Amino acid sequence: MRVLGIDCGSQRTGYGVIESDGCEHRAIAWGVIRTSPALPFEKRLLEISGGLRGLLREHLPESAAVEGVFHSVNVKTVLKLAHVRGVALAAVAEAGVDLAEYSPLEIKTSVVGYGRAQKGQVQTMVQSLLRLPEAIASEDASDALAVAICHATHLSTSRRLGRAV
Amino acid sequence: MRVLGIDCGSQRTGYGVIESDGCEHRAIAWGVIRTSPALPFEKRLLEISGGLRGLLREHLPESAAVEGVFHSVNVKTVLKLAHVRGVALAAVAEAGVDLAEYSPLEIKTSVVGYGRAQKGQVQTMVQSLLRLPEAIASEDASDALAVAICHATHLSTSRRLGRAV
Repeated sequence: MRVLGIDCGSQRTGYGVIESDGCEHRAIAWGVIRTSPALPFEKRLLEISGGLRGLLREHLPESAAVEGVFHSVNVKTVLKLAHVRGVALAAVAEAGVDLAEYSPLEIKTSVVGYGRAQKGQVQTMVQSLLRLPEAIASEDASDALAVAICHATHLSTSRRLGRAV
Repeated sequence: MRVLGIDCGSQRTGYGVIESDGCEHRAIAWGVIRTSPALPFEKRLLEISGGLRGLLREHLPESAAVEGVFHSVNVKTVLKLAHVRGVALAAVAEAGVDLAEYSPLEIKTSVVGYGRAQKGQVQTMVQSLLRLPEAIASEDASDALAVAICHATHLSTSRRLGRAV
């Protein structure tokens, strides 16, 4: 199955596309949609929306996943993030692609096996699981691939359970 | 000038289009984009996005305005609202339309002349300013028209000031 992971952010939105059977994962594409800080916020949202819609058209994922909103101390940051998530969720729905949400704890547990893993540990495990020659430089892209791996693993498990039942 | 006012909400997003010279306002269209509570949130966001994009294409406003995010007590409600604002702002940017934001205080002051006006007073003034035979039944549509009136008044004043300078 082909899965798109999205790591939302108003300045940088990471994305990662993987091909997976639930055990073996292969990275297809990853990167960051960067927005211009000089632009008004609504134009930055449009850049993110356009970027994601292009990726969905190009890679035709079967399913997509994002991190759930966590209530950070900084209300302003969380509100900006929620605006970005709005356009990301709408882009996924427009493409007719299923969407799942995972908490940071679920993602880290799935990828590292430990819910309180450090950022660096997630990057190392993403590189290892995808058998990449080197770690992915962008933390946002790596986080997006982690979301994709987490989702592929969950999807595969629930399908296997479904067949068993 | 033609102005679109938007009153964002995940269940009901009000809209109002007016034609205005800054003093006299005429209502062109108003209503509510209702989303289906049974649908997943991302599909509701897509309904709102699609609705607004259709309105922008149909009415070709010169400028649009929304209410700023206010920090309500209920974090969950504010976060949902921020997702909806995300798709609304992106729709306006996509149409190449200028966007302005006003606080509830600015809107009420502009329409009623009093920043702490009650909901009913706003509805009565919207009806009166637009010379409508009866009050607009939907509070969301009426609020959206209030945003549009506020914006048209501000735009007209700043243009007159610009010419004077």
